[in-house]
Amino acid sequence: MRRSQLFTKTSKTIPADEQSRNAQLLIQAGFIYKVMAGVYAYTPLGLRVIEKIKTIVREEMNAVNGQELIMTNLQPREIWEGTGRWDDEIVDIWFKTKLKDDTELGLAWSHEEAIVEMMKQHIGSYKDLPVSVYQFQTKLRNELRAKSGIMRGREFVMKDMYSMAVDAKQHDEYYDSVIEAYKRVYDRLGIGKDTYITFASGGAFTKFSHEFQTICDAGEDIIYLHREKNIAINELEAVKTSEVGNIFNFGTEKSEKMDFTFTNEAGEKQYVHLGSYGIGITRLMGVLVEKLSDAKGMVWPMVVAPVQVYVATVGQSEKVVQTAEELYKALTVAGIEVLYDDRDARPGEKFADADLMGIPYRVVVSEKTLEQNLYEVKARTQDTPELLEINELIKKVAGNLA
Amino acid sequence: MRRSQLFTKTSKTIPADEQSRNAQLLIQAGFIYKVMAGVYAYTPLGLRVIEKIKTIVREEMNAVNGQELIMTNLQPREIWEGTGRWDDEIVDIWFKTKLKDDTELGLAWSHEEAIVEMMKQHIGSYKDLPVSVYQFQTKLRNELRAKSGIMRGREFVMKDMYSMAVDAKQHDEYYDSVIEAYKRVYDRLGIGKDTYITFASGGAFTKFSHEFQTICDAGEDIIYLHREKNIAINELEAVKTSEVGNIFNFGTEKSEKMDFTFTNEAGEKQYVHLGSYGIGITRLMGVLVEKLSDAKGMVWPMVVAPVQVYVATVGQSEKVVQTAEELYKALTVAGIEVLYDDRDARPGEKFADADLMGIPYRVVVSEKTLEQNLYEVKARTQDTPELLEINELIKKVAGNLA
Repeated sequence: MRRSQLFTKTSKTIPADEQSRNAQLLIQAGFIYKVMAGVYAYTPLGLRVIEKIKTIVREEMNAVNGQELIMTNLQPREIWEGTGRWDDEIVDIWFKTKLKDDTELGLAWSHEEAIVEMMKQHIGSYKDLPVSVYQFQTKLRNELRAKSGIMRGREFVMKDMYSMAVDAKQHDEYYDSVIEAYKRVYDRLGIGKDTYITFASGGAFTKFSHEFQTICDAGEDIIYLHREKNIAINELEAVKTSEVGNIFNFGTEKSEKMDFTFTNEAGEKQYVHLGSYGIGITRLMGVLVEKLSDAKGMVWPMVVAPVQVYVATVGQSEKVVQTAEELYKALTVAGIEVLYDDRDARPGEKFADADLMGIPYRVVVSEKTLEQNLYEVKARTQDTPELLEINELIKKVAGNLA
Repeated sequence: MRRSQLFTKTSKTIPADEQSRNAQLLIQAGFIYKVMAGVYAYTPLGLRVIEKIKTIVREEMNAVNGQELIMTNLQPREIWEGTGRWDDEIVDIWFKTKLKDDTELGLAWSHEEAIVEMMKQHIGSYKDLPVSVYQFQTKLRNELRAKSGIMRGREFVMKDMYSMAVDAKQHDEYYDSVIEAYKRVYDRLGIGKDTYITFASGGAFTKFSHEFQTICDAGEDIIYLHREKNIAINELEAVKTSEVGNIFNFGTEKSEKMDFTFTNEAGEKQYVHLGSYGIGITRLMGVLVEKLSDAKGMVWPMVVAPVQVYVATVGQSEKVVQTAEELYKALTVAGIEVLYDDRDARPGEKFADADLMGIPYRVVVSEKTLEQNLYEVKARTQDTPELLEINELIKKVAGNLA
């Protein structure tokens, strides 16, 4: 990608109407655009991060036999009335709208009832179970306040998965496998060691639930850690955390309300055991910004960075430009994604942008180092650059990407 | 994909509440699920088709330098009031909702105003132009009636692209390049020869527009064809068509209303020339069903079929099952996507499902042909099967996929 062709611009000004660091940085770096409080569009660099997080989550959900589908935003009133969750007094985050004939519709803040209603058509026998389906969906939630940037939005992207099982044993086995899948997601994103699983007793709608909490100063939660034992319990050290995933065990409660049954081997009707498993994709992106950023800007892990390398020219001499073009091509051919800053701008401006955007590696092409056929390479997380030949450079970046 | 693990089931019963052939077939084959009139969820097989159509469209939009992003469903009232398009008397397909403080919001049926409002932050100089951005977005439109299945929905997926240029000449050049990109999309989907570009004089909101109309009996439009000249004009043959793409030239009208300007080389403020370019992804999917289906079911082009091969076993003898498993593996390794019907079901039932789902190739594994180390292979569009060795089979399918 050529910087001269990327339409987004960076800004040195912290947006006055944003309190959260994640929204400030993402807006300044041109990753997101604020439509209104809690509602953000994702510009090309931001969309690339979302898609990469989705790819990791998708691979792990497929690995536990999740089947991907996509449900709808528009929701019929009836199915939510059946479980007592249509009433605004009970669920206070509904956005609602109307058809032309005044039929009231909801806009999906969750898809539990919608999934069950659909699965009733396809699940008949114990042979159809266990089964697990998931989606990446835009959820709409009418939050009273929205001050946490993309960590708690009124419109956001969520991965939600739903499992169905014949009994508690089959359910628990699957539930445990998803816990492991979630751990792999956090490990791959580089936040595994700071992420703890916490137990919650459930609430109005669930038997019990677990949350995955990542240590994060901008978090809304507090957990109590026993670091040596690597468990989160109500005793020793209080740390601020942000929820990066939650999983619910519904037992058969929702199935009973919605008459979701199957026939067992003995030919008897039984209620399906349900579980649901969420990861807020855009929230996770916000947590990565909050956790990893420094005074200069964001710091993306290699696996989800919009590109891996920021190539900056110093000056625009023929030799520098020609070499930079060749480097851009060589890196691209090697499967490395590049933001090539081909603008006629001051080096300091380019370096500041590379830091703000949090690109893992910055490569500088200048007359000075070209005399030795070397490139100045600096990791975003390091202060000191090193001088590398092109093959060493490619090997270094590709090695860290694999 | 193993059929025994795919949760969707097929149905022999035509859904009584669906008038359109596309919705009937897609529901019967388990590609979509009807939530309410004009609102459909996409189950795994249906989602795969959507994603493949999106990939083709994405590649062609990238080829004309489109930059992908994603806007929001929730829309602030102000920007649409500014262009006179908030009023339900003017735009009669709005879904509207409210924040907790009673602030009215719209749900995006289009993103023209939203894109312009955002781009105003990033476009300042003639050097920033031309630029083109696009998204794949779920649009919500409050249609009075919704009887055409996924061809005209209340909730549907659309690719919408927006171009910005310094003047009419720069705009026209880009506009023409998108026409060619659209033609490539239809060619790749196999409907290029039946797709005509028609001219419309515009309307309340545009200077002029073009539509791409595909011959389709279920279409809502009529065009007049001069087949020999391959042009659509008001004279000779009237055929029913469905719109599969539209492109609009706004000139500077919307920019003037929204004060969207740039500074030209002489330092003067000028209005940006705008274009917009839509392809209804789910509509296109519906048109493919309507156009290509036959009495037995759907017929997917190789490039967008959910899988390319349906492997069906005849009987479940050890040898048949073992060979089918090996074939499933060999095809997968060769990069061919397979729906492997591993169910203990009657062959006729499996064959009927392969036809209904419209999978391009059906491969039968039976004791009879295995004696000769051969597989019965039948293209969905042909009546007579042929007997092939495994390498011939792979070569045939992979050759048609490339």
